[in-house]
Amino acid sequence: MSEPLESDAPDFETIETLAVVGVGLVGGSIARAAKVRGMARSVVGVGRNLARLEEARRRGLIDEATVDLAQAARRAGFLIFCTPVDRIVEGVRTAADVCPSGGLITDAGSVKGCICRALAQGLPKGVEFVGSHPLAGSERQGFEHADARLFENRVCVVTPVESSPRPAVTRVTAFWKRMGAKIIEMTPEAHDKALAETSHLPHLVAAALAATLSAENKALAASGFRDTTRIASGDSELWSAILLGNRDEVLASLSRFDASLTRFRRALEQNDSAALKELLKAAKMSRESVVNT
Amino acid sequence: MSEPLESDAPDFETIETLAVVGVGLVGGSIARAAKVRGMARSVVGVGRNLARLEEARRRGLIDEATVDLAQAARRAGFLIFCTPVDRIVEGVRTAADVCPSGGLITDAGSVKGCICRALAQGLPKGVEFVGSHPLAGSERQGFEHADARLFENRVCVVTPVESSPRPAVTRVTAFWKRMGAKIIEMTPEAHDKALAETSHLPHLVAAALAATLSAENKALAASGFRDTTRIASGDSELWSAILLGNRDEVLASLSRFDASLTRFRRALEQNDSAALKELLKAAKMSRESVVNT
Repeated sequence: MSEPLESDAPDFETIETLAVVGVGLVGGSIARAAKVRGMARSVVGVGRNLARLEEARRRGLIDEATVDLAQAARRAGFLIFCTPVDRIVEGVRTAADVCPSGGLITDAGSVKGCICRALAQGLPKGVEFVGSHPLAGSERQGFEHADARLFENRVCVVTPVESSPRPAVTRVTAFWKRMGAKIIEMTPEAHDKALAETSHLPHLVAAALAATLSAENKALAASGFRDTTRIASGDSELWSAILLGNRDEVLASLSRFDASLTRFRRALEQNDSAALKELLKAAKMSRESVVNT
Repeated sequence: MSEPLESDAPDFETIETLAVVGVGLVGGSIARAAKVRGMARSVVGVGRNLARLEEARRRGLIDEATVDLAQAARRAGFLIFCTPVDRIVEGVRTAADVCPSGGLITDAGSVKGCICRALAQGLPKGVEFVGSHPLAGSERQGFEHADARLFENRVCVVTPVESSPRPAVTRVTAFWKRMGAKIIEMTPEAHDKALAETSHLPHLVAAALAATLSAENKALAASGFRDTTRIASGDSELWSAILLGNRDEVLASLSRFDASLTRFRRALEQNDSAALKELLKAAKMSRESVVNT
């Protein structure tokens, strides 16, 4: 086809005032991308530490800085919550109560079920919440690492519930597409089941592995150890909230991992070279089927 | 001290003929480094696939190519084995039987106990074996990735046994120092215990994690998953031999990992946010104490 697809050049009506709640790596990158791409006339950053927010403003990431969520929400037609996952529901309620009719709220949290189900009810008429989760970020923290291109060619999962109005879902989808993300739409529950396996379980395993290292062996930890445990450097408060916010699915993934590890252990215990080779080969194929992006 | 230390500018007598047995990433890098640094007048590459060896010769990594180990060993004053670990003992015996008196043999294998103990006996008088293990390499394979600087600032563990003559240990140490490596001398057993924890266990865990990934979730595997499972892309034959070659220590490390993972699981099961945060914080500190090189 020679005409551009809608998905290649999505319509996204410019936001008068965009509120970014939580201006860290992800929030800062969203603020930067929204400005660079002309998606918002004004970006207000909301947080708990005014000095940090003022620094983000000095760096040009946001136009205004405030610690007063309600004050920002009153003027914001579009809000995105990038706070730790255990503070999103409460924040969205506070904002929804005062934001203009027609206001649209989304988030960037790594768990979706507990957030989207809680917010499926009780918001004022005319204000909508649609959850999202951009698969970008890293163990780095703070807006100092903000990058307007953080979401380019990254997957962003959008997680409407049954009652989400289609126009709201379409607008949140268009928001992320304009940031360069590839959209996957899923239910919050399907998201949590998948991310338990691809993100939350790996975090738990990396942390348990890092914790296993004896002090006297540190000099002998080379690139393999460092790669395998890199994500264990993530913030412990953030990750504790994520793991607890998706507890049942994480525990289920952990059981599958245990079963997998037991197969390797058994082959090793039984000195079964053929079985061990097969297991390693299957793992290698699985790893290599994941496209490096 | 103002005088240069011996360890900073090690003496290393030029080798007339260096034999590199197994010309892959590590063997190829050793061959390249030996030539670049003028450590050997001639480098003979020994392998099983003559066409591949001829290609390595055309690329200038080695001066001669042969599939006849004994023929190469007859002329070589210094030999290094970079074959899979389960072929080192047999190869060293074959070479030692015919190499010139005064010949020195080392290896680059990832396990040391089973190799060094087997070779502590039965070599002809005047020929010495001292094990080594450079902590370099990657999931990439083949001499196409050879790099003369692969060992620079990397740790190389040298593992003499009680009967190893000190001059032989000193010469193997000087060989690696000239390649830019930082030397740690340990017993083969101490090496295997440490590497079980820092390398072999992470490989097993990464493989079990990669194997846990469901096909339908691949699109949702982001950089965290990819980092954590990167080493699972290693060659399954090589790694099967390494894991079985250090079986008891790998199983002991696996038990410690299981205990660590159980602590995380329990905190999650009990919804114990404080305990989970503490565990994640300790893991983060452990990870961050490992210097990135």
